[in-house]
Amino acid sequence: MENFTFYAPTYFAFGQDTENDTGKYVKRFGGHKVLIHYGGGSVIRSGLMDRVKRSLEAEKLPYIELGGVRPNPRSGLVYEGIELCRKENVDFILAVGGGSTIDSAKAIAAGVPYDGDFWDYYQGKPVDEALSIGTVLTISAAGSEGSPDSVITKEEGMFKRGATGEALRPKFTILNPALTQTLPAYQTACGITDIMAHLYERYLTNTTEVEVTDRMIEALLLTMIHEGPRVIADPDNYQARANIMWAGMMAHNNSCGVGRTQDWTSHDVEHELSALYDCAHGAGLAVVMPAVFTYNMNHDVMRFAQAAVRVWGCQMDFAHPENTAREGIEALRKFLISIGMPKNFAELGAREEDIEKLAHTACYGNGGSGVMGGFVPLHQQDVEAIYRLML
Amino acid sequence: MENFTFYAPTYFAFGQDTENDTGKYVKRFGGHKVLIHYGGGSVIRSGLMDRVKRSLEAEKLPYIELGGVRPNPRSGLVYEGIELCRKENVDFILAVGGGSTIDSAKAIAAGVPYDGDFWDYYQGKPVDEALSIGTVLTISAAGSEGSPDSVITKEEGMFKRGATGEALRPKFTILNPALTQTLPAYQTACGITDIMAHLYERYLTNTTEVEVTDRMIEALLLTMIHEGPRVIADPDNYQARANIMWAGMMAHNNSCGVGRTQDWTSHDVEHELSALYDCAHGAGLAVVMPAVFTYNMNHDVMRFAQAAVRVWGCQMDFAHPENTAREGIEALRKFLISIGMPKNFAELGAREEDIEKLAHTACYGNGGSGVMGGFVPLHQQDVEAIYRLML
Repeated sequence: MENFTFYAPTYFAFGQDTENDTGKYVKRFGGHKVLIHYGGGSVIRSGLMDRVKRSLEAEKLPYIELGGVRPNPRSGLVYEGIELCRKENVDFILAVGGGSTIDSAKAIAAGVPYDGDFWDYYQGKPVDEALSIGTVLTISAAGSEGSPDSVITKEEGMFKRGATGEALRPKFTILNPALTQTLPAYQTACGITDIMAHLYERYLTNTTEVEVTDRMIEALLLTMIHEGPRVIADPDNYQARANIMWAGMMAHNNSCGVGRTQDWTSHDVEHELSALYDCAHGAGLAVVMPAVFTYNMNHDVMRFAQAAVRVWGCQMDFAHPENTAREGIEALRKFLISIGMPKNFAELGAREEDIEKLAHTACYGNGGSGVMGGFVPLHQQDVEAIYRLML
Repeated sequence: MENFTFYAPTYFAFGQDTENDTGKYVKRFGGHKVLIHYGGGSVIRSGLMDRVKRSLEAEKLPYIELGGVRPNPRSGLVYEGIELCRKENVDFILAVGGGSTIDSAKAIAAGVPYDGDFWDYYQGKPVDEALSIGTVLTISAAGSEGSPDSVITKEEGMFKRGATGEALRPKFTILNPALTQTLPAYQTACGITDIMAHLYERYLTNTTEVEVTDRMIEALLLTMIHEGPRVIADPDNYQARANIMWAGMMAHNNSCGVGRTQDWTSHDVEHELSALYDCAHGAGLAVVMPAVFTYNMNHDVMRFAQAAVRVWGCQMDFAHPENTAREGIEALRKFLISIGMPKNFAELGAREEDIEKLAHTACYGNGGSGVMGGFVPLHQQDVEAIYRLML
């Protein structure tokens, strides 16, 4: 295990009706004037927005609103939000929605007190200062509700890049599994896939002797395998959604990723797809992961065999561990298809003729060095080969 | 899953040499004058105390010292510490040692700003205010380094009782696995047992549909089963100690205990033994757990069978699940003996003739209602029967 620091000071209020305490938590964590940031009309139609506003009003907290966050959130709305907050002296950003809304809220929170262009943070500058952030989560997926990370797409060039910094961790997060019950099955499945990807990205490490985090990652994957199909079959299953919601947070607050190198190849390979085709991030990951893992498998057959046995219940082929490793990747692929995810480029709306461009942008776009991947170093030709495995 | 809140804002610095940053963290978390609280001479002899002091001096932080914390820490030293801190205007308590030292530091931290007797907190009053606490951990065991809990023994009557409150969570914790390498094997094994007990106490629940926390608890138990024997066989195994150290913290910061009822019968039954015979808490738990689990097994055979299969690798006896359940408890018992823990009352230095008194104190002592146990309600005659299973 490598040296690390871990600091996850987000306050979680989990369970039925917890959104009614939003105002109380904004006050507890020092907010005086609030920007409610959200996406489309679903949080309004469901009545959630009204409940959140009533809770702010009960605490006499003034607020303004900025909606319109879209999946793969864009820089344009972030600039708008920064300007609005400065003009209105907002000191607390409340995200009501999923990972995209939270990521956009984080970008605004970082941008308000910063003299330069907020995009600097998405080109590697650590975020040391930001307005306080609170979240009311409506989709179990990104883990952004408990993480110090944010991903934004810059419209000029359609670069999708991430920023990170302790200042971006939400002060509090409301997790009411019932709020996710109205999600369409496809979005639920995209969320399940994203959570599993966060786990695999941490699982694929070159650090040895990390039994505790290996086991925790496996535990959360096993949870997703058990609860995923239950919630797809029965969208109103509160308990299955509750287990997924806590797993989704734990998958990405890094308590199971500490002290080990991580991969993030699948995310980087996927980001090019959702940036270019605007597909759902989770759907992209469902197509990307089996391809990346197949390509990288020989780098550490035993690690993939371990996942196959411990997570997917495969029998170990002691004479040919590569068979077991492959079986585990195949089990993942079948699982993702079984919950309704796309299985190839075509189903994703991606085009073979874009592969060279996709691979080039992944490796060189927005200041990239030409090499990507935390588990196996990959060059443009490798990334091209990975995209071809998705055809 | 039940509604819950979760808030674990302790900053962890994990790895080699991290104790040299102690002063930096005291400053970061607002300390101006420090009480260094510790136990015996081992932290001085090992050179750890010198390194900690140097790090405080480097930050120009004045400090005073109070040593003498003993296992099963006592109220007498707590009163002394409270008086000392008030006299010297201390605003930060730095615990250098194991769970006993941290628990004693927490009691002092709570007592200093409180007008009444600090023992009120150990009779159920929640701790809302306390001086800031930092810890440099030297034993993986109690989990106190990341928890809001403290256990103290009151000399008058030898009552061992716990206090809890968010104000008791350390602001920071230094986790250097190398600091645990000099521990005698017996103490290391006691720590392993305590960690496993913290996991079992959470595992034994009456809440259904808690797959995510079930799986996480199982993951941490599997880690202990893998790493425990490695570290007993090779005390200098840094990596095994690192895995145990993180597992020990995760086992007790409650991220795997949220949203479910918990048991704590084994701890309560054990506390009477260490209070009366002054045995090591972990050693007591090694004798207590198999007895408690055997007594309670029929309350939920399938839960014990699940642990047997998923944690201990037993084959499920589908015709007779109780056989599997029993096999899992037996596997735990044998594991604890294999790492050097005592197996019965005699090896613990406990006496059969005290059983009635032990059971009575467990149920009625210090204001007890006569019923104990979060998993199965137990009366004095049940607790007596449990103690008899340890003979």
